[in-house]
Amino acid sequence: MTKKLVFGHKNPDTDTICSAIVYAELKNKIGEEAEAVRLGEVSSETQYALDYFQVDAPRLVETVANEVDKVILVDHNERQQSVDDIDEVEVAEVIDHHRIANFETNGPLYYRAEPVGCTATILTKMFKENGEEISKSQAGLLLSSIISDSLLFKSPTCTDEDVKAAKELEAIAGVDAESYGLELLKAGADISGLSAEELLSLDAKEFSMGNSKVEIAQVNTVDTEEVLLRKSEISKAIKNTISDKSLGLFVFVITDILTNDSTVIALGDEASSVNKAFGVELKDNQAVLEGVVSRKKQIVPPLNEQLD
Amino acid sequence: MTKKLVFGHKNPDTDTICSAIVYAELKNKIGEEAEAVRLGEVSSETQYALDYFQVDAPRLVETVANEVDKVILVDHNERQQSVDDIDEVEVAEVIDHHRIANFETNGPLYYRAEPVGCTATILTKMFKENGEEISKSQAGLLLSSIISDSLLFKSPTCTDEDVKAAKELEAIAGVDAESYGLELLKAGADISGLSAEELLSLDAKEFSMGNSKVEIAQVNTVDTEEVLLRKSEISKAIKNTISDKSLGLFVFVITDILTNDSTVIALGDEASSVNKAFGVELKDNQAVLEGVVSRKKQIVPPLNEQLD
Repeated sequence: MTKKLVFGHKNPDTDTICSAIVYAELKNKIGEEAEAVRLGEVSSETQYALDYFQVDAPRLVETVANEVDKVILVDHNERQQSVDDIDEVEVAEVIDHHRIANFETNGPLYYRAEPVGCTATILTKMFKENGEEISKSQAGLLLSSIISDSLLFKSPTCTDEDVKAAKELEAIAGVDAESYGLELLKAGADISGLSAEELLSLDAKEFSMGNSKVEIAQVNTVDTEEVLLRKSEISKAIKNTISDKSLGLFVFVITDILTNDSTVIALGDEASSVNKAFGVELKDNQAVLEGVVSRKKQIVPPLNEQLD
Repeated sequence: MTKKLVFGHKNPDTDTICSAIVYAELKNKIGEEAEAVRLGEVSSETQYALDYFQVDAPRLVETVANEVDKVILVDHNERQQSVDDIDEVEVAEVIDHHRIANFETNGPLYYRAEPVGCTATILTKMFKENGEEISKSQAGLLLSSIISDSLLFKSPTCTDEDVKAAKELEAIAGVDAESYGLELLKAGADISGLSAEELLSLDAKEFSMGNSKVEIAQVNTVDTEEVLLRKSEISKAIKNTISDKSLGLFVFVITDILTNDSTVIALGDEASSVNKAFGVELKDNQAVLEGVVSRKKQIVPPLNEQLD
């Protein structure tokens, strides 16, 4: 049995980092050699969870084919969100909760996707199925992932299964989900000291929609106005990204974790698709999407429908 | 809860028909409305299993969007193997054991693929996970699928999990897997009375490989020479199919279920890729592939590597 690397998507968020760590540990427990790695910087939110539960961040890698033949993807499947040399290795497994796109294999594989809010929820079930105990720190990381992806259970992506898993994990981790969760989200919403470029790459994902490359970046905040004060600087950075990556559309989503509304800044040749997709009118490239907090469930599908 | 249609691939084989029947029944048992349908004629092998266990064949459909909004795919995921109007419905679930390709969704879904020999093996596990009993006829259909896909456990696609599931199903179904299985395979290998066109479409699948459309059709036989006596008639039918469907390659695989070797007839602009893929030399468009019985594991991957 040769070692497999386990990793989530680029611009890693808490679910991607924590799920990679915990799934590699589960693999080791059941006798398979696996190591978690990451494809980008650890966010301040994720670092808060790692510090709280005293777990080291995975090793940063830029390529994987120089180390292993087989990999395990967690929390993503789309090629453009994965490691640059993904085509040079065999994907042995995928554990994910997103749509499937731009994913293709030569041979059969283990693929497990469920329409739940978080990869960590699926992993919680997999520990049970394998008859393995979840440790305190594993429970803490999995709980942090669910809180992060569900914005403390308020996102429409949050399912009964996520809530059920979180309750079980809360007991094992020995924290109060509500109070710990708010501190976790606030740690992630602290964007002071970040450059516009860093702000855009905190949680950015690229998608193929129709003939266009679309990047959607999201930040959580407790003060939308504070972010919008830097709009001209941010817009300039977006335009540079569009030009560098030949994007058809860049949508920057500022999500208020207290009101659960999002303000978007949309730029690029396909920017007008935002109007049709969400029934809004961009003014100065900006619009408020009321009640929209989920990129996966509320932003990607209507945009994809417009551009496909 | 609205009804979902459950179906396998075009040119249905035993696993595709039986898995659709049994998974729809499992769905009904756990309170979800589902109906199995099929996308093509029932083969003589599958009919043998249905008759033996006294189960009706599913209803034949040509389109699904006129009936339902959501569907469940079993035993396939590639668009070109699915119903013609697959793009007009939402794929709610996939239960499969093949590579993933030409598959894309707008939103998250339940996707379960495992690298085992047969969809029926995954379904056997899913009954247990849902705490539901497998009935005698369900066990018979699932066992027939495993025997069919694994050529009585002799194919390299057959895993320990398939053998384990078959043993459990054998006891519930009340048959001897070896003797029942040989009769089942012989029923499928009886190709007397079939036209060349019927022979080619018995178990044919189309694949996208690189820029080429490739069709690979397979027949099982206990007498390869008997099939090769009709080579000129078969070659003519292959050429017509290539022209009708603009294929780059058609590979007709004649698999001897007693010796476990296959003889292939390969035609089309990309026919020479067969030489490189399998280390053989086509003579008069024909070659023997020793020890090759599995399209999925032994034919698709090396061909895909050549053409990709």
